[in-house]
Amino acid sequence: MDFAHSARATEYLDRVGEFIATEIDPVEPDHHRELAALDDPWVVLPVIEELKAKAKAKGLWNLFLPDTEHGAGLKNVEYAPLAELMGRSAIAPEVFNCNAPDTGNMEVLHMFGSQEQKDRWLTPLLAGEIRSAFCMTEPDVASSDATNMAATAVVDGDEIVLNGTKWFSTGIGHPNCKVAIFMGLTDPDAHKYARHSMVLVPLDTPGVTVGRMLPVFGRLDAPSGHGEVTFTDVRLPLEAVIAGPGRGFEIAQGRLGPGRIHHCMRLIGLAEKALELACRRATDRVAFGKPLANLGGNRERIANARIAIDQARLLVLSTAWKLDTHGLRGALSEVSQIKVVVPNMALGVIDMAIQLHGGAGMTDDFPLAAAYAGARALRLADGPDEVHQGVVSRIELKKYLP
Amino acid sequence: MDFAHSARATEYLDRVGEFIATEIDPVEPDHHRELAALDDPWVVLPVIEELKAKAKAKGLWNLFLPDTEHGAGLKNVEYAPLAELMGRSAIAPEVFNCNAPDTGNMEVLHMFGSQEQKDRWLTPLLAGEIRSAFCMTEPDVASSDATNMAATAVVDGDEIVLNGTKWFSTGIGHPNCKVAIFMGLTDPDAHKYARHSMVLVPLDTPGVTVGRMLPVFGRLDAPSGHGEVTFTDVRLPLEAVIAGPGRGFEIAQGRLGPGRIHHCMRLIGLAEKALELACRRATDRVAFGKPLANLGGNRERIANARIAIDQARLLVLSTAWKLDTHGLRGALSEVSQIKVVVPNMALGVIDMAIQLHGGAGMTDDFPLAAAYAGARALRLADGPDEVHQGVVSRIELKKYLP
Amino acid sequence: MDFAHSARATEYLDRVGEFIATEIDPVEPDHHRELAALDDPWVVLPVIEELKAKAKAKGLWNLFLPDTEHGAGLKNVEYAPLAELMGRSAIAPEVFNCNAPDTGNMEVLHMFGSQEQKDRWLTPLLAGEIRSAFCMTEPDVASSDATNMAATAVVDGDEIVLNGTKWFSTGIGHPNCKVAIFMGLTDPDAHKYARHSMVLVPLDTPGVTVGRMLPVFGRLDAPSGHGEVTFTDVRLPLEAVIAGPGRGFEIAQGRLGPGRIHHCMRLIGLAEKALELACRRATDRVAFGKPLANLGGNRERIANARIAIDQARLLVLSTAWKLDTHGLRGALSEVSQIKVVVPNMALGVIDMAIQLHGGAGMTDDFPLAAAYAGARALRLADGPDEVHQGVVSRIELKKYLP
Amino acid sequence: MDFAHSARATEYLDRVGEFIATEIDPVEPDHHRELAALDDPWVVLPVIEELKAKAKAKGLWNLFLPDTEHGAGLKNVEYAPLAELMGRSAIAPEVFNCNAPDTGNMEVLHMFGSQEQKDRWLTPLLAGEIRSAFCMTEPDVASSDATNMAATAVVDGDEIVLNGTKWFSTGIGHPNCKVAIFMGLTDPDAHKYARHSMVLVPLDTPGVTVGRMLPVFGRLDAPSGHGEVTFTDVRLPLEAVIAGPGRGFEIAQGRLGPGRIHHCMRLIGLAEKALELACRRATDRVAFGKPLANLGGNRERIANARIAIDQARLLVLSTAWKLDTHGLRGALSEVSQIKVVVPNMALGVIDMAIQLHGGAGMTDDFPLAAAYAGARALRLADGPDEVHQGVVSRIELKKYLP
Repeated sequence: MDFAHSARATEYLDRVGEFIATEIDPVEPDHHRELAALDDPWVVLPVIEELKAKAKAKGLWNLFLPDTEHGAGLKNVEYAPLAELMGRSAIAPEVFNCNAPDTGNMEVLHMFGSQEQKDRWLTPLLAGEIRSAFCMTEPDVASSDATNMAATAVVDGDEIVLNGTKWFSTGIGHPNCKVAIFMGLTDPDAHKYARHSMVLVPLDTPGVTVGRMLPVFGRLDAPSGHGEVTFTDVRLPLEAVIAGPGRGFEIAQGRLGPGRIHHCMRLIGLAEKALELACRRATDRVAFGKPLANLGGNRERIANARIAIDQARLLVLSTAWKLDTHGLRGALSEVSQIKVVVPNMALGVIDMAIQLHGGAGMTDDFPLAAAYAGARALRLADGPDEVHQGVVSRIELKKYLP
Repeated sequence: MDFAHSARATEYLDRVGEFIATEIDPVEPDHHRELAALDDPWVVLPVIEELKAKAKAKGLWNLFLPDTEHGAGLKNVEYAPLAELMGRSAIAPEVFNCNAPDTGNMEVLHMFGSQEQKDRWLTPLLAGEIRSAFCMTEPDVASSDATNMAATAVVDGDEIVLNGTKWFSTGIGHPNCKVAIFMGLTDPDAHKYARHSMVLVPLDTPGVTVGRMLPVFGRLDAPSGHGEVTFTDVRLPLEAVIAGPGRGFEIAQGRLGPGRIHHCMRLIGLAEKALELACRRATDRVAFGKPLANLGGNRERIANARIAIDQARLLVLSTAWKLDTHGLRGALSEVSQIKVVVPNMALGVIDMAIQLHGGAGMTDDFPLAAAYAGARALRLADGPDEVHQGVVSRIELKKYLP
Repeated sequence: MDFAHSARATEYLDRVGEFIATEIDPVEPDHHRELAALDDPWVVLPVIEELKAKAKAKGLWNLFLPDTEHGAGLKNVEYAPLAELMGRSAIAPEVFNCNAPDTGNMEVLHMFGSQEQKDRWLTPLLAGEIRSAFCMTEPDVASSDATNMAATAVVDGDEIVLNGTKWFSTGIGHPNCKVAIFMGLTDPDAHKYARHSMVLVPLDTPGVTVGRMLPVFGRLDAPSGHGEVTFTDVRLPLEAVIAGPGRGFEIAQGRLGPGRIHHCMRLIGLAEKALELACRRATDRVAFGKPLANLGGNRERIANARIAIDQARLLVLSTAWKLDTHGLRGALSEVSQIKVVVPNMALGVIDMAIQLHGGAGMTDDFPLAAAYAGARALRLADGPDEVHQGVVSRIELKKYLP
Repeated sequence: MDFAHSARATEYLDRVGEFIATEIDPVEPDHHRELAALDDPWVVLPVIEELKAKAKAKGLWNLFLPDTEHGAGLKNVEYAPLAELMGRSAIAPEVFNCNAPDTGNMEVLHMFGSQEQKDRWLTPLLAGEIRSAFCMTEPDVASSDATNMAATAVVDGDEIVLNGTKWFSTGIGHPNCKVAIFMGLTDPDAHKYARHSMVLVPLDTPGVTVGRMLPVFGRLDAPSGHGEVTFTDVRLPLEAVIAGPGRGFEIAQGRLGPGRIHHCMRLIGLAEKALELACRRATDRVAFGKPLANLGGNRERIANARIAIDQARLLVLSTAWKLDTHGLRGALSEVSQIKVVVPNMALGVIDMAIQLHGGAGMTDDFPLAAAYAGARALRLADGPDEVHQGVVSRIELKKYLP
């Protein structure tokens, strides 16, 4: 066993850390203030494009992609700590072109896309010129059970016809968002893992309507947003289907593992940031004649936060290693475990930090309330705790079945 | 022991319940939608004034005030269940003229105000013609320790001069808000409970500046708001001081008990509402071929919510009874106990309901996300858990000191 | 609402409290030491009979029985606080002849017994001359589901024939235990609540074998014990059946509510005792230059214990009041709620007290480790949490079914 | 990063696992039954010596010792998984001569002992011929604060004189226990880490009295036991002092890290055993027509147990790796973190397993109640949670101090 990062990961950690400290941290608060002051915040501020250009110039670009040609060639266990660093900032993932759902969409295109699909969509995504969305969750059914999916993607000759309403399509509000990956039911009679298709839908296709942006705990998360999108008789050539009709689940599986690692590591970064703020507040602020750190159970809570973060990180890193060495099949329980552990851990740490900040912690003077909303959303996104606990226990119990 | 409500309380429960069911529930969702669609939501929609007129006409008005002349003459333990009913709705407290911080301010004026102060401020508050704010918490110090208060209220001849910055002044954004009660340091050398004064400040007094409205978990809570207010050499005649200089803490103590009961009972109403929504969702929504109620630990969570609400309600009602029969001195531990119990209980129940609603629970399609933000704020407002746990344990440990 | 105890309850509280303080507390530690030092601890020490005689002489006897002739005529809500007082001591319940399972058995005989059954068994039980057991739980099936019961009570002419193995028959080891109430399946084809019978079995009946005493978290709880009992072709006249064959469930229901109240209140007494010990230790013991009370989160834990006990007590008292005023049918959810709340609350408080006592808390130098074992057993006895959460949620969800 | 065990560790894992499965598991239940049936259980049953001989013959002996000559030369991170395997069984640690406190004592002698001390005590300990105790904790002071220690080890010419009372001296009841390491105050005026001495005390030295064995949650843990030992003017030559007077703390520090790893890994093994039993019970036992696994939240609890164990193990293994690569100085926070995490995790898992076993889980028919008592003791032994949370938070807060 060796708990040290590889030399390559360590080097990237230094470079990404320095870039965040010198380029992003100094400008991020102003970015948020400027955006919040706009009447229309659904825009990309110039500072973002400047930072992207700098990051690209330094080779800190598309680090998430295991491919050596277009990405950095990093294994999951090597990219994971970089995702953690990026997660401390609300804009860093975009700056390094490592933002969800683009990362997952790029991986899908890289693994399953046709050359034409790659040329049209992957190339500008990798260049950070456009952005993308992923349309899966639906408002009218319990989407935690994927077989509930009601939207359809019906083959009609050499076309595919999409119908249905999706929501929580993250990034759909972004001004650069040009394409969505839509998932729908193609053949209800096929094997349950061969019924669905994934289709690349240019957002300007007739029949596609981006509706309202959904507030998440009161936040619209402009300029990305989480939108409602209706598809009404949207017709596309069959070439828009990724890997061909009926392969939607297979593709979804492929993006599952790494995406989970990325999300979780970013959340761990956010939790570290919250713990840092908590520690600073606990030493700076005085009540009843003592720094908050010396009052009641505050030190115990700080210790528990430290421990919870470290345990969560180890679990995610070991899951990343399992993915790298055993593939998704060999890491099914772990990939569900981290989905249960990390959002709950982050919520606990962030809430503790808010409590130490008093009223200020609930405002936007600190990034804590936004962090809480983000972590809460991730407890539901990509399956609620209960679904993942179900996976973990099924695998566990199977060990002892006759 | 008798756990039945008095005949009088039971009768009011029926009447308030029916008013909410027939007058408020049918119009509340439209109210919120209409308000949310406005460019400037810092207004009172006509429906509110119509509802207020109806409530007043039916005698469901100022029920919180124990005084028989201006209020309903109800004891705390009798008003408490009415506050719970009102808490299920975001507008009911205002409709019945039972909204914080007006209730506390009216009580203060009723108990400690001069005749002139009553004529000028209490009369229109009781009539629901104006609203008021309470300026206590400060941004630059840990306000959980009241002795940290930095704002000043200095006597200068027959005037009092106010300086300082307050925030989280709830209701200060309301278009009808005309007056604030300001608390500040008058005499740093007096006994620690005789140093502060409470002053009635018309909001149009020179030197008073209402600044930004603070977002609380992303919400501005228009049209009431939680504002930042600066007081710069605000000069008022000494007659504006309530009960005379140096009596601020004494007055604050007086409003403490009943206010805590009201807040807590409203939160219990909110938790009941959340549990109702959770139960409806659990029976309506289907995943993996079963209603959510029949999946995993959902029934256990619903049972735990039922139990937690019932336990919290009993604790608040018994505290109200203690206040009624033994006074604040005889209920000091209890008044702190409910402050610890109820917000935490409500957060747990609301969060469970959100989880059962999936993504929808985080949006404003259901009142759950707003309820969560409100309950979280009440875990901090009026002292964080830790301060109240300190009170409870001090009283407990004292029993065994030599 | 009135949270004050009735005059009658208050008077008994004073008298029982004084008896415990002056008669029981001074001798209890010696009683335990003496018993522990015996090679055969399955005996009644003389001090117990002396205390019983004193309690009887003072009229502090059979207080649990609502009947005014044989008991004190107290309502559940009046007896409940007395049970709490008794629960602080391991021997008080026996001293006042208010010990389980005798109390439940006496109630059953009082309500359902024939005159002959009463003369033979109720009279000496009320006199404290004999003791009794209740044989329901079985080792080979999940007894949380009563329909799993495998033991049989088959009518054969004018006899009833018992077969099966029971365990966790509390009190069966007591030297004065002369009779057991056995529950078994009589008619598998009857309605599911009319299949079982309850039978009075003298322990010296041929075919009855009291087997090993079961250790519960390492304790045998001599001289009462929790035993395994086998019934092999035990033949008794039909007159031994309580209320006639097939009425077992009906009778079980009758003893359910009050028994639950008694158990829970005694546990609350035990939790109060643990909190008292925790407070004393926290003020007496010094580490790192401070009394333990002033270290870390100890005060918060003491506050939480105080709050948890008070909430639990209020829930049990309101349940007792509901039983008194609405009967078991009107208190079904509540009777399950207290079964979930109280043992868990007690375990938390006792564990906190143990932690404050360090190693000593785990030994028998303090009553804490024994209290923990007792409370843990009560989390399982009479149905585990999960069964009762099921009852509570079923009743809750039913409110919203179409 | 590499989460795979080294080839050497993997090979030992196979061999130790097979030995336990084929040699220990089949005889362990009989061993416990036989011991429990004895009037005097303070004996070593022959099966233990037979198993020890077999283990030694197979080279599965003293694996804990990093020294290649007397031990297996394993790093902490390599021995850790072996300790986990051993922890599943109550007798395996002794069988492989890897039992506490002998392991710690052997390490101390190996690192700090004189040649004479090694010849006299280390040699027979390594051979498994004698056993040893460690006398540190005291009944009359809060031993969580080591500076409270009241026992004395005073130099008098060429002798050292010991006085004081120790308790929770684990292993002192073992018939083969021949020597104890005693820690006492030598020079109260020295630097606080140079005041104490560790002394090797043959148990037959005049003035040493082994008193009562302490029940821990009702268990005496024969034949090892946790005893009270008084030292009254015990005189020993100065050669009995380990490394010379005043070096007690330094030595204690040295045994700290590895000992913590061993304890924690054994507890993780115990938790795994409990989870296995829980899974088996959940699939075998039926209630309400379903296996327990399919009732309520049982699957969620099983998933949570799986996750908690895996997180705890990763934390301990990474701590072991830090000890190996950075030494104790570089792992101070981690060594405290695992002390907080592991016992609490184990208690939760074992308690869940007990709950699934119903009444049977509390008896000695399953190893769960004993496991619970053992884990609870380890939450206190070697410092309660609160002390270790204090260490973790101090290190955390220091990062942000100016």
